[in-house]
This record gives sequence, C-alpha cells and structure tokens, in this order.
Amino acid sequence: MAELTGEPLHILLIEDNEAHAELVIRGMRDQQVANRIHHIMDGEQALDYLFHKGAFTDTAKNPRPNLILLDLRLPRIDGLDVLKTVKESPALRRIPVVVLTSSDAETDIAKSNDYHANSYVVKPLDFKTFTKLMKDLGFYWLGWNAKPIPD
Amino acid sequence: MAELTGEPLHILLIEDNEAHAELVIRGMRDQQVANRIHHIMDGEQALDYLFHKGAFTDTAKNPRPNLILLDLRLPRIDGLDVLKTVKESPALRRIPVVVLTSSDAETDIAKSNDYHANSYVVKPLDFKTFTKLMKDLGFYWLGWNAKPIPD
Repeated sequence: MAELTGEPLHILLIEDNEAHAELVIRGMRDQQVANRIHHIMDGEQALDYLFHKGAFTDTAKNPRPNLILLDLRLPRIDGLDVLKTVKESPALRRIPVVVLTSSDAETDIAKSNDYHANSYVVKPLDFKTFTKLMKDLGFYWLGWNAKPIPD
Repeated sequence: MAELTGEPLHILLIEDNEAHAELVIRGMRDQQVANRIHHIMDGEQALDYLFHKGAFTDTAKNPRPNLILLDLRLPRIDGLDVLKTVKESPALRRIPVVVLTSSDAETDIAKSNDYHANSYVVKPLDFKTFTKLMKDLGFYWLGWNAKPIPD
C-alpha cells in the first residue's frame, strides 16, 4: 500500500466539463493520500502532456502521472483514442487509466475494456454520490493499487 | 453504479492459502453489494472453471464471474499464466482481474501490468488492514466499476 505521506502522487485528469472537473478536484483534495491533479481539457493536449510535447516539455512541471482519469467525449481527440494510444505505448501503458464518464453505453464500456482501460466508472448524477465516488476511487487507486513500474 | 440489491455478483477467488482465502471470504460477506464467492485452489482448476471444463461444466452452478481475485504463486498453473490466458481469451478478457498477492516484486507488478491485469494489490500483513482492503476493493469493483459487457 502506498504510503499516506511523502511525495505526492500525480493524477492526470482529462475532462472538458468544468463542473465535473471541479468535483473531481475537490474530491481529491480531501484524500488521505497526498496528490496533485493536472487538469487537461482535450484529448490532443492530454497526449501532448503524456508524451512531453508542445507546451509540456518541462518534465518536472508536468511529471508522468501515477493515475489517469479519462472522460470519453473530448474535443480534438476522443477519449477512446487517447486510451488506445496510452495502452499501446510501452512508456505509458502501465499507468492505470480509469474511464470516468457520463456514458453508460454498452459500446463505450466494451471498447474501453478492449482497449485495456483498467476500470470504467459511470459518473453519478448527484453531488453527494460523486463526492463519495472520488473518495473511494482515489483511495483505491492511489492507496491500495501498486504503483506502476516504469518500463 | 451497480445496484446494492438484486442478483448477487459472482467472484472467482483463486487462492491456495487457506488463511488468506478465509480473510477474503469474510471480508466479502460484509459487503454492501450482494456477492457469491467461488473459491479455487490452483491455476489449472481456475482455467477449468472459467472455460467450463472438467468438474465445472454446469454453468448454472459455476457462472462466469463478474470479478476475478488472483493470487500469483499457485500450484499446477502459475497465476501469471492464468492472467495471460484470461486476457487473451475473447470470452473472458473483459472480466476485471485484480491480482491479490504477497509479492511486491517489481517483476511481478510489471508482468501483471503487461498482461493487462486491471489492478495489482499487495496483501496487507495485518488482519485489520486486510479486512479494510477487502471492504474497499469489493465495493470499488462490485459497486463503482461498470459491469463487464459479454463479448
């Protein structure tokens, strides 16, 4: 289990809905596990961030995340394509990707599974449940799940 | 989020250590999410169960699980080989597999990631933490994570 103190763990939040992003960021702020969220609003920038391109060449400021929270419907590059690219990249594929989306469509769940998303979670509709989800999700992935080993 | 009542969700527990199995089974009994555990002691039987072979041809008695909890050091067929086989099978690959092991060896974590384990959790050493883990793990995978779509 990850230590509850020490170096903060980094989360890349890929989410174009400001209100949802705010809920995630707030939920993560209350975690027992120290963490820092990097919020990106579209799929193209997300891949730039992950591959240290464009505005994200500074690897100290933009470290490789310990966890990716990925919305599916994104501007520029779709979430499913981001997922596929991450999981096909030897440098990135071991980072856990949790799809966090409003879609409960079977095709989205099935495709996300086939592209090796680690988990697929449908966003709850009410604020209280969303907050509870972020608590559980953050603690599970940052606390219990073993830190990925760099390739 | 999966309903908290209704049809129980099925967990396949692949674990050769009786004491650890007992801790998992007890922890799952206290879940908010109704579930039934099918406990298998070695890798060969686990694959027989999953492919409805040998002693497990009765699919009503031995349903396809919603979640697999997989120890790594197993008799007959190793846990990593079970994982690889499950994730290469079109019929099984969408079932979430959580590796639950005493090993925190980097090679085991890396290989499990590369074979597309959904998550890797190191067994806590003390009883109280183990019980807390089972509560969190069960609720996350049976409650929050979307049910896998059959192929």
